[in-house]
Amino acid sequence: MTFDTASLRYNEAGLIPAVAQDAGSGEVLMLAWMNAEAVARTLETGRVTYWSRSRQAFWVKGETSGHVQELVEMRVDCDRDALLVLVRQEGPACHTNRRSCFYSAVRGGDEVIISEPME
Amino acid sequence: MTFDTASLRYNEAGLIPAVAQDAGSGEVLMLAWMNAEAVARTLETGRVTYWSRSRQAFWVKGETSGHVQELVEMRVDCDRDALLVLVRQEGPACHTNRRSCFYSAVRGGDEVIISEPME
Repeated sequence: MTFDTASLRYNEAGLIPAVAQDAGSGEVLMLAWMNAEAVARTLETGRVTYWSRSRQAFWVKGETSGHVQELVEMRVDCDRDALLVLVRQEGPACHTNRRSCFYSAVRGGDEVIISEPME
Repeated sequence: MTFDTASLRYNEAGLIPAVAQDAGSGEVLMLAWMNAEAVARTLETGRVTYWSRSRQAFWVKGETSGHVQELVEMRVDCDRDALLVLVRQEGPACHTNRRSCFYSAVRGGDEVIISEPME
């Protein structure tokens, strides 16, 4: 069956959440948002492209930082309202220079930083 | 620092996306939504609890199916607007009886089913 970006279910802002996972290690790197055109561009170019809600613009991950995400595979969930992108991540995925954006853990009622910025 | 559910950033519906990942295998199982009370209940009970947008009710994962998610650790992302829950998943996470909800892959412009329902 041919994949059609229009077959996905977007929210009222026309966006769908996309979870980026390191294709090698399995580490979950980040969650960001795509619109239909960002999904299409990601598939066409092999460079993971989000829609920046703060800038209201396409966001080719790593375009300025060099920390690109090369698409390995895109997956769609059962409800067609979430995406998983398996990626090869160059350097840190997080703007704090950490590998993953999920660097804060809740342990025993406290919040603990579990990873440090990369050198 | 004490974790406070009010420190998270919820959308206009009072919800935050939560990605469930198998704590053992690293497989991404599903993406669902929590409100502040669902976050609190998940941490208090150790049973991952979402907010069902379709039913507009708390959804203790596996309460009816038995396919519970035992919380191993909750993580918060840098923008505080997404959660990662590491879980021990009993049986399939997906309502289609598949281990993961992300069972459809986009390959060469086509959509391909990459996992079958569990026995």
